[in-house]
Amino acid sequence: MSPSVAPETLAAVHQLYGAQSHLIDGGHARDWALTFTADGEFVSPSYPEPVTGTGALTAFAERFAAEARARDEVTRHVLTNLFVREAGERHATVEAYLQIVTTPRGEPSRLVRQTTITDDLVHGDGGWRIRRRVVRRDDQPQ
Amino acid sequence: MSPSVAPETLAAVHQLYGAQSHLIDGGHARDWALTFTADGEFVSPSYPEPVTGTGALTAFAERFAAEARARDEVTRHVLTNLFVREAGERHATVEAYLQIVTTPRGEPSRLVRQTTITDDLVHGDGGWRIRRRVVRRDDQPQ
Amino acid sequence: MSPSVAPETLAAVHQLYGAQSHLIDGGHARDWALTFTADGEFVSPSYPEPVTGTGALTAFAERFAAEARARDEVTRHVLTNLFVREAGERHATVEAYLQIVTTPRGEPSRLVRQTTITDDLVHGDGGWRIRRRVVRRDDQPQ
Repeated sequence: MSPSVAPETLAAVHQLYGAQSHLIDGGHARDWALTFTADGEFVSPSYPEPVTGTGALTAFAERFAAEARARDEVTRHVLTNLFVREAGERHATVEAYLQIVTTPRGEPSRLVRQTTITDDLVHGDGGWRIRRRVVRRDDQPQ
Repeated sequence: MSPSVAPETLAAVHQLYGAQSHLIDGGHARDWALTFTADGEFVSPSYPEPVTGTGALTAFAERFAAEARARDEVTRHVLTNLFVREAGERHATVEAYLQIVTTPRGEPSRLVRQTTITDDLVHGDGGWRIRRRVVRRDDQPQ
Repeated sequence: MSPSVAPETLAAVHQLYGAQSHLIDGGHARDWALTFTADGEFVSPSYPEPVTGTGALTAFAERFAAEARARDEVTRHVLTNLFVREAGERHATVEAYLQIVTTPRGEPSRLVRQTTITDDLVHGDGGWRIRRRVVRRDDQPQ
């Protein structure tokens, strides 16, 4: 249920996820893309097809920022319930809840969407990165 | 205020709480019950009396899942503000905030309830488990 | 992007932030103030000017509690996306998201405000404390 994970591994994974939302929400599109491997995949029912590779992931994050600016609102990816389901030396599986919270200028904040993410991680020269993320939306249960 | 806790202990506790919500929300009733000790107690003002022991906790989690299915909605236990108030070799006290977030199929997500939990933990052969959880609801302050 | 931080440092920082919201939300005004240094600063657009020093921070937290009691509601500081952006031996920079969630007695809980915090920390005899906090509100983007 709660597999033993080395404190060093858990610290590195918590930092990866700690950084990630700040990067996309703060408009650092390429740095967000680099939390994924060079061939990283982002699979979400909110988008017509998977986004794959650093270039496409960067463009995806830039579109996200541009659309928020166009609507004059701030969107946050609120991450909770981070769980390292399994972790070896080079591979790990991570689950978390991810809420989308949007605030139009001068208006109340709103919980737009509750999702879960299941990520495959690999460990390389740059530390832990996400090889594949699968997003599931609570409003579209399977 | 922020007592020093060994990184190994904090990692194990973070993993226990990381796992727990995914277990009950994902329908793994018995595995959720096993995050409590064999004589574990769950005390909440949302239910008429305490739930005690692995069998009763499993049945409790099964009912939770069945009711969500019957309403065709997904409910998440969103855990934040995890704090290990004190930790010895075999006993620990943990506090956290726990939100109930529900999403009916095809509809917006909704924050149903904000609660706090105060847990007594014991460390045994299976690692850290919850001996007693007390839930307090913010809409019923004392 | 996700700088390597020693597990001991990350554990201490997670505990500091784990404790902090429980302290102000639970009415422990002076203990909350002591999560800041003696000359600690709290800078927020929700208040007319910065709050500086243990005495002023304590009075600030006491007012927060008194106002919540007067309105017969419970307010929580829900902290997520904790990220240690950089950490040396004596200085660290930390970012997080901080939601204000309020629950009037007998009524539903409500997400009042989504903010981000950027904190400068220093390490002294009492462990890590906050030297300066800057709050930004999502409804007042810059």
